[in-house]
Amino acid sequence: MRATTLHDTRDIRFTEVPDPAIEKPTDAIVKVSAACICGSDLWPYRGENPIRPGQTIGHECLGVVEEVGSEVSAFRAGDLVVVPFDHCDNTCAHCRNGMQAGCVNLGMTTSGQAEYAKVNQADGSLVAVPADHDPALVPSLLALSDVMPTGWHAAVSAGVREGSTVVVIGDGAVGLCGVLAAATMGAERIVAMSRHEPRQEIARAFGATHVIAERGDDATAAVMELTDGIGADAVLECVGTDQSMRTAFDVARPGSMVGFVGVPHGVELPVRTMFGRNVGLAGGMAPVRRYLPDLLELVLAGRIDPGKVFDLTLPLAEVADGYRAMDERRAVKVLLQP
Amino acid sequence: MRATTLHDTRDIRFTEVPDPAIEKPTDAIVKVSAACICGSDLWPYRGENPIRPGQTIGHECLGVVEEVGSEVSAFRAGDLVVVPFDHCDNTCAHCRNGMQAGCVNLGMTTSGQAEYAKVNQADGSLVAVPADHDPALVPSLLALSDVMPTGWHAAVSAGVREGSTVVVIGDGAVGLCGVLAAATMGAERIVAMSRHEPRQEIARAFGATHVIAERGDDATAAVMELTDGIGADAVLECVGTDQSMRTAFDVARPGSMVGFVGVPHGVELPVRTMFGRNVGLAGGMAPVRRYLPDLLELVLAGRIDPGKVFDLTLPLAEVADGYRAMDERRAVKVLLQP
Repeated sequence: MRATTLHDTRDIRFTEVPDPAIEKPTDAIVKVSAACICGSDLWPYRGENPIRPGQTIGHECLGVVEEVGSEVSAFRAGDLVVVPFDHCDNTCAHCRNGMQAGCVNLGMTTSGQAEYAKVNQADGSLVAVPADHDPALVPSLLALSDVMPTGWHAAVSAGVREGSTVVVIGDGAVGLCGVLAAATMGAERIVAMSRHEPRQEIARAFGATHVIAERGDDATAAVMELTDGIGADAVLECVGTDQSMRTAFDVARPGSMVGFVGVPHGVELPVRTMFGRNVGLAGGMAPVRRYLPDLLELVLAGRIDPGKVFDLTLPLAEVADGYRAMDERRAVKVLLQP
Repeated sequence: MRATTLHDTRDIRFTEVPDPAIEKPTDAIVKVSAACICGSDLWPYRGENPIRPGQTIGHECLGVVEEVGSEVSAFRAGDLVVVPFDHCDNTCAHCRNGMQAGCVNLGMTTSGQAEYAKVNQADGSLVAVPADHDPALVPSLLALSDVMPTGWHAAVSAGVREGSTVVVIGDGAVGLCGVLAAATMGAERIVAMSRHEPRQEIARAFGATHVIAERGDDATAAVMELTDGIGADAVLECVGTDQSMRTAFDVARPGSMVGFVGVPHGVELPVRTMFGRNVGLAGGMAPVRRYLPDLLELVLAGRIDPGKVFDLTLPLAEVADGYRAMDERRAVKVLLQP
């Protein structure tokens, strides 16, 4: 098949690789009908994570089941499915506790930006999409494989409630989906931290009531002014750097939680501040399968439209242009069509 | 008045100091009827926190209101009251959000081991005890000024629920009260980590279903065996050292929370582990006033008896012996009678 492969820093190619095959009876092969590029794909692209030259890349996709292993009973060839980036059996103790990201049979999509992707634990992982869905919903359905559930996980981890004042740090696609999650959960005030006009627009469309363009201490001061010196009821940290984490704790009110979903890079947690101000931290890799059925209903009902985060669509074969556009921040998130 | 004062490392005296006086109209003076020594008093006693030679010490007490400021309306001389170690107005935004430990008018008891203690924000802080209470309840009522609400805060922060499997790290009085809190909240399995026979006994009396005497990796292995490799639903970290915090994260199942109430000393939080395993952290100084009314009801109804943590009672004048007994771990917690 043809797949996106990474060969060196900023060397993305669309090349021929062996087709993925059923290896375990719980596997399925999905023919990708829509894929996209994740902010986290930029880490190896930029040489900041180690790579194996020629490796396939991409973990977000929507597709049609092509083939299933002998133990897969809930899906068959022809089914349209959302593929969570993290695969799970959905039956182990961790899955039953709602933490599918800690499944004892955890798997990952490894060739999402390709013609075919293999799914481990197909029965536990996949969620079917009605065949008669509106084709205009494809971007939003695709967003359910990672970015929207990840923003949702940040909001859940931060304890967003009806009426909450929420601060979202990070205006990447995940942060924007965090805004949408908070709005859907009934937050009253949602402050998006963003200095980029097109991202500010999406944030407002998703429900942000305020936008703060400042960073660091100035950003903290702006949140404090907005909240009469109280701070936020919930903070979504969707970046993963030490500065963004510090800002998160600075703007959180005593007794609140910071929900974090950006893989931490060089973060040192301020444990004395956390203790002294009673501000907690929770989050991590999103248990996509946990949130997927509910989010799918919201998308199908037209109540959320996370597909708005895609501001550039390219043929899959031009994936390298997509990486460049995201690397240079010319695009928020790129949708790829095989 | 006569008060406990700290003069140098391990130099505790019972000496004459000026009486505390009403300084603000919201103050009250309480005549101490029962006091005690906190594990955190041992930090300055051992020279591990800076001190001002001759300073009064002690922040836990039960007493009778002696005098009130002109703006105190809910209490008057003669009322028996529990004095939360952290004073609050109970009206500011943080108090209304249930985080009285972050009150904008936060105060602290500073002469709890003395004849008289001053209370800032008396109306917001104090909770009255019915005059006709059973005198045998005094130790449990005294425990409501700090140690019991602190154990309760650990359990709340860790998200203990009915049916939870809970691990409590630390067999000091706070950890033991954490066990009692978890049991009261309906936890099904409560694992107390303790290697000291008398403390194990109190833990079992408070509701611990299992006791683990091992430490470090062996303790983790024991919890994992007990939970079929799953880990705990909630972990109460009641020590505050780097090792105890590591153990806390090691025994917590994916998606769970560590509640911490021991002032962290030399703790470096394992942010990548927290992210990778989706284990959160919350806690800090307990908002005593938030929990006090409910805990008082439980004590008066005979449903909890946190006073069991006191295994040595001394006249206040012999307070130095009490510090020695706790420093040498001959006593779990010392009750002082003026």
